[in-house]
Amino acid sequence: MSIKAYVTDIKEWEREFSFYYETKVRFNETDMFGHLNNTVPFVYFESARIEFFKSLGFMQNWLEPQEECIPVVADLQCDFLKQVFFDQQLKIYVKAAAIGGSSVDIHYMGKNDKEEIVLTGRGTMVQISKQTGKGVPWTEEMREMLAGHKHVLVDDHQ
Amino acid sequence: MSIKAYVTDIKEWEREFSFYYETKVRFNETDMFGHLNNTVPFVYFESARIEFFKSLGFMQNWLEPQEECIPVVADLQCDFLKQVFFDQQLKIYVKAAAIGGSSVDIHYMGKNDKEEIVLTGRGTMVQISKQTGKGVPWTEEMREMLAGHKHVLVDDHQ
Amino acid sequence: MSIKAYVTDIKEWEREFSFYYETKVRFNETDMFGHLNNTVPFVYFESARIEFFKSLGFMQNWLEPQEECIPVVADLQCDFLKQVFFDQQLKIYVKAAAIGGSSVDIHYMGKNDKEEIVLTGRGTMVQISKQTGKGVPWTEEMREMLAGHKHVLVDDHQ
Amino acid sequence: MSIKAYVTDIKEWEREFSFYYETKVRFNETDMFGHLNNTVPFVYFESARIEFFKSLGFMQNWLEPQEECIPVVADLQCDFLKQVFFDQQLKIYVKAAAIGGSSVDIHYMGKNDKEEIVLTGRGTMVQISKQTGKGVPWTEEMREMLAGHKHVLVDDHQ
Repeated sequence: MSIKAYVTDIKEWEREFSFYYETKVRFNETDMFGHLNNTVPFVYFESARIEFFKSLGFMQNWLEPQEECIPVVADLQCDFLKQVFFDQQLKIYVKAAAIGGSSVDIHYMGKNDKEEIVLTGRGTMVQISKQTGKGVPWTEEMREMLAGHKHVLVDDHQ
Repeated sequence: MSIKAYVTDIKEWEREFSFYYETKVRFNETDMFGHLNNTVPFVYFESARIEFFKSLGFMQNWLEPQEECIPVVADLQCDFLKQVFFDQQLKIYVKAAAIGGSSVDIHYMGKNDKEEIVLTGRGTMVQISKQTGKGVPWTEEMREMLAGHKHVLVDDHQ
Repeated sequence: MSIKAYVTDIKEWEREFSFYYETKVRFNETDMFGHLNNTVPFVYFESARIEFFKSLGFMQNWLEPQEECIPVVADLQCDFLKQVFFDQQLKIYVKAAAIGGSSVDIHYMGKNDKEEIVLTGRGTMVQISKQTGKGVPWTEEMREMLAGHKHVLVDDHQ
Repeated sequence: MSIKAYVTDIKEWEREFSFYYETKVRFNETDMFGHLNNTVPFVYFESARIEFFKSLGFMQNWLEPQEECIPVVADLQCDFLKQVFFDQQLKIYVKAAAIGGSSVDIHYMGKNDKEEIVLTGRGTMVQISKQTGKGVPWTEEMREMLAGHKHVLVDDHQ
């Protein structure tokens, strides 16, 4: 597995993570080939990302019925570095790697209990208006919270 | 496997089904024991039940955002008669076995492509108000449609 | 919701549980009606049951590739007492309610963080031979472990 | 949504697909935001890819218990172009976009019933040995079948 375009320097990339979500591979998440089915890491990414957004206080607002905005996923990707098996304890790390006008590029790193990287991934989230479906810019406060969580590249395009 | 309480006469019980939903076992629905994971038949039951309700014209209303009522599941059960494997084609039969005031007892029968019964099940659906969470009685027309679909026991209690 | 056939005395039934598994409702486990989808409690039951079997030392053997026996689900049922929502913390209690020759009747109780019972359920597990597909009787030691975990009705039939 | 790196010319890219798998969005695949949950397209991709491999005769061998090789997913990505809703009928198109020594780059395109592209994606599959976990080169016959299905770039690296 070659290093992916979204990881320029694996050591530095790894060091930038601090927030993580823990989970354990469920039996129904395996498949007849005996390992974690390839569709499940995206479930872990979603749960990890939501915990990350909760830690910033964003998720609570997005879940309010009267709130104008919701987050949507624009794209997702995952690289499967090592096989993952039933009952393994995983840490799914999350960071905001780049902040756009109304979007954020979220990176993911999954480690098993030997601290081996088993999964990496990324995906863009966009804050949109429920009414218009268009992107709604982050407030300055939101940008700072996303950025403050980590030294991130701030990019005003998109 | 003994005959279950909800099946008094298996031959007659089987004969009363006519509506069915077809599906094929997906790879991600298997588990590391090599067969269909036991949690998945309830997904098939839901899809089959919804197609059944669509055939009666009920589902379309329940999905309208301004509609007062939604259907909720009060209970569900499944008996696993034969192992089911990846890529098997299944027919999931559905019938309204008994009609209550605002509820209906739905029965399910799953057959493989050899026409063997592999799954049976049942569960009560209740039409509730989104506002109050209380049961909302079927209209006379709805009762007739539920009953007309099949010779069913009409039971006014619940 | 009336008391179900598998619960004769709800207070006593509740008291007999001690083992539990904790989980939190994931976002992808909700559906467009805004609550936990009805197919998901069976996933929780499976994970809870496996942790219960691990606590007895059974699961470890069943997962060995060279092991003759695996557990299979003969039937499952769930009663939905209260709506469950995204991000709620749930405790899924498990007990062995009755022990057969090669089977065990497992009961489940799900509580939210207000200690309200939101789900109840049960289902029979059978220890079968991978080769023959037939039930394989519990050893005396296994019976004692199942029984010792709780004061259970030992029933030699089935 | 800008055109993704794996799509150089969208018109030509679209034209190269012919094989497709059909599915309908299930109720349990929606989430509380009212649309298809973002983790589910990877389930559709898996089912579509397997039907594609079945059409080439590959899948049947890979499923034989005594077979030396299985396919594994090295990476996956999905771009969400339009929101997808409950009960929509989708066609998931599949093609082999580039063939490596023991791997193949599979591309995906999902269309709704208005023939709008709602999802695009790609991912690398590798044929590995169950024993060694290493890649097992395609036979010449397999390469021809993968290539013959479509005019594809044959690339011997990886």
